[in-house]
Amino acid sequence: MRSRMPRKRRIAKVSGFPECSPDEMLVFGQWLRKITETFEEFGFAPMITRSVEEIGTITSKGADVDKEIYALVRLEDVLAGSSKLDSRLALHFDLTVPFARYVAEHAGRIVFPFKRYQVQPVWRGERAQEGRYREFYQCDVDVVDIPSASGFYDRHTPEVILETLSRLDIPPVVFSINDRRVLEAFYENLEIDDPVGVIRVMDKLSKAGVQATRDALIRVTKLSERQADHCLRLARIRSRDSEFVGAVRDLGATSERLDACLHELDEVRQYLLAREYANIRVEVDLSIARGLDYYTGVVFEGHLQDYAGFPAICSGGRYENLVQSLSGRSIGGVGGSIGLTRLLLKLFKEGLVEVGASSPTELALLYLPESDAAWLRSVAGILRDRGIRVEECGGPERYDKLIKYCRRKGIKYCVYQNAEGDLKLRDLSAGHERAFDARTWRAC
Amino acid sequence: MRSRMPRKRRIAKVSGFPECSPDEMLVFGQWLRKITETFEEFGFAPMITRSVEEIGTITSKGADVDKEIYALVRLEDVLAGSSKLDSRLALHFDLTVPFARYVAEHAGRIVFPFKRYQVQPVWRGERAQEGRYREFYQCDVDVVDIPSASGFYDRHTPEVILETLSRLDIPPVVFSINDRRVLEAFYENLEIDDPVGVIRVMDKLSKAGVQATRDALIRVTKLSERQADHCLRLARIRSRDSEFVGAVRDLGATSERLDACLHELDEVRQYLLAREYANIRVEVDLSIARGLDYYTGVVFEGHLQDYAGFPAICSGGRYENLVQSLSGRSIGGVGGSIGLTRLLLKLFKEGLVEVGASSPTELALLYLPESDAAWLRSVAGILRDRGIRVEECGGPERYDKLIKYCRRKGIKYCVYQNAEGDLKLRDLSAGHERAFDARTWRAC
Repeated sequence: MRSRMPRKRRIAKVSGFPECSPDEMLVFGQWLRKITETFEEFGFAPMITRSVEEIGTITSKGADVDKEIYALVRLEDVLAGSSKLDSRLALHFDLTVPFARYVAEHAGRIVFPFKRYQVQPVWRGERAQEGRYREFYQCDVDVVDIPSASGFYDRHTPEVILETLSRLDIPPVVFSINDRRVLEAFYENLEIDDPVGVIRVMDKLSKAGVQATRDALIRVTKLSERQADHCLRLARIRSRDSEFVGAVRDLGATSERLDACLHELDEVRQYLLAREYANIRVEVDLSIARGLDYYTGVVFEGHLQDYAGFPAICSGGRYENLVQSLSGRSIGGVGGSIGLTRLLLKLFKEGLVEVGASSPTELALLYLPESDAAWLRSVAGILRDRGIRVEECGGPERYDKLIKYCRRKGIKYCVYQNAEGDLKLRDLSAGHERAFDARTWRAC
Repeated sequence: MRSRMPRKRRIAKVSGFPECSPDEMLVFGQWLRKITETFEEFGFAPMITRSVEEIGTITSKGADVDKEIYALVRLEDVLAGSSKLDSRLALHFDLTVPFARYVAEHAGRIVFPFKRYQVQPVWRGERAQEGRYREFYQCDVDVVDIPSASGFYDRHTPEVILETLSRLDIPPVVFSINDRRVLEAFYENLEIDDPVGVIRVMDKLSKAGVQATRDALIRVTKLSERQADHCLRLARIRSRDSEFVGAVRDLGATSERLDACLHELDEVRQYLLAREYANIRVEVDLSIARGLDYYTGVVFEGHLQDYAGFPAICSGGRYENLVQSLSGRSIGGVGGSIGLTRLLLKLFKEGLVEVGASSPTELALLYLPESDAAWLRSVAGILRDRGIRVEECGGPERYDKLIKYCRRKGIKYCVYQNAEGDLKLRDLSAGHERAFDARTWRAC
């Protein structure tokens, strides 16, 4: 063993770029397929954008993401120690900006409202830590229209995310909804001059804690103690029924705009609570703000109930100005995203998802030296025509080695030709053998 | 219109990074699914590696690919005009090197023979031209084992590629097979000192032409005119039957090794020709060399018959030394790859694949202002439980606009609630309407 250590070390893992083992990867692939199939069941069309954007496009959002972005340079220039490195391009750090750029670029060939899903890796050069990676897969759905998507999608888009999550075997999730306009109307009511600044501070509440947030509200955004305390009281309001509306009024805040926003948020709540989603608790949570500046209405995020402090596994909301800022056209919509890498790697780590077989094979066909290869090949064809996943094992060539291979891969059935030339099915879990007919066999 | 031009120009397309329109993307997604499902039907397990490799790993193959590689630097360093840019990482330029690195890194958790498929984008900084892109999707299958995959996979791996292609709606393809060892044994027989050098020259034959190749063989690899002419005669041999064996002997070349290699190549030919693949012509072609140094045995590539000069749409072969060079362990195998982006974009361009609908929706459910939204929602649920892809259209809210939307997206059926409160199914192609029952309806 000692002699192998140096070799192993020679190929260092790269921090922040996680990879799955083959058995984990099989689950990852199954979830990926389930997610995309669900998105398509809701009529969302697949979309892949290029992995790179022009640096101007990526930074046009104005968010201070510069430090988290990877720019591209040609390796030969680096090796040549070139002083001026051509880096007009950078890897996208989310799927929303590329989507917005795509819509702006191809608007002429797009039918609006445009409903698409997008599953791709995104890259962030930030320090890697649990739940935060430098490369990870996001699964996004968005509906955009000119000038903006109908209010129906404030309810429907989070519904798609909820329905998709409910089809995955996940532990308890708390799915929180809010509306940016409720916060803004409430802050206006308190005569706060910079609502967006306050939202940015409040977004850190769960991490920073009440005291630090109060201090920041007073020092950074120059609120009075009374204003700060009202903001914090609002953020404590959580509810699965309409009571949150009264609770806000009890804080002494009233305005036509606030009432209207609360009413619309309650409609979203009613719509989402009208269905039961296994393992998902939907609630209004007025502390939810979402950091990104571009949200303008309903916002939502989902958290693993039993892992406080672990980042959101899904999120989204309505935006109006994002595409516009890129194209000059007024295009807005509602989007939602599932952080597949973040979610699954956590479930793997906590042992909350079953990881077993490392192969999709339903049945292994063993090519032993003495067997009739042409016949076995035709058997494989018959089985695949019936939609059965058949692995043809042409090596190693010893029966006992092949059986061991199947066991280690988690393959349940194998078929071989015995000394009499008959096909035998061996059930590796039950251990028994029987005659095999390719035209009728089904895994049970 | 004029006023929109500048906006359009502001969002420049990036050369070499192609993107599909929504209707093309739907086909791309369908092909992607068909390819991965076929790979899984053959028992290959899904695999995703990180998009980046350490520069040392990528260049360890020694191939002169440096200039084609994108290295990563942090944008803030570029913007700060930093002199020393940290570029320990580069984007992978194929899926074979990352796979080899993965196998070397995770060998302890892998069951051998290891059979995986991998569908990811790869990046090359080369000049973009038709069929050659800077970002494109490859679909790879590989079988590797310790010390190497059984000879069975020399036949089986190209078979998987052939079977996969045959399930796609492609124009005529010529699928050529050869064996590096046939070339090497033949060159040895001619007392050529540097077979690999000659292979590299011969690999350019189809592009460079006979005369230029002959000159290169004489000037670059120092062959005699007689040796060069023999190499070129060998490269002219094509055949769908065993005659190629005699044709090689007719060139006066004989050796035990050559005979053995010719015999094994003929076995692969027989195996692949034992099946009929619609639109694919399989043949032995002794001019096929494959540029990459790492191939050591059977090699194959597929070309669109009617587009001479267009690069290979699929390729592969046996390699022995690739993983070893990265891990110090002796791991070898046989791999094959389909160039999905290259293939599909060509078919789109030539109008050889039908591009129609821009949505996966089978049936659109129209939420008109006066309709019973709760009921329509339950109808959507019933249909999805039956596996039907239902798009809920909550905006725009005018019937005629929604119908126009469905037509433009290529959606065939829509359902709405009429003034009497009954559900009506409208067939947009046939134009007629009838009563709708969610429990029994099927698209025809």
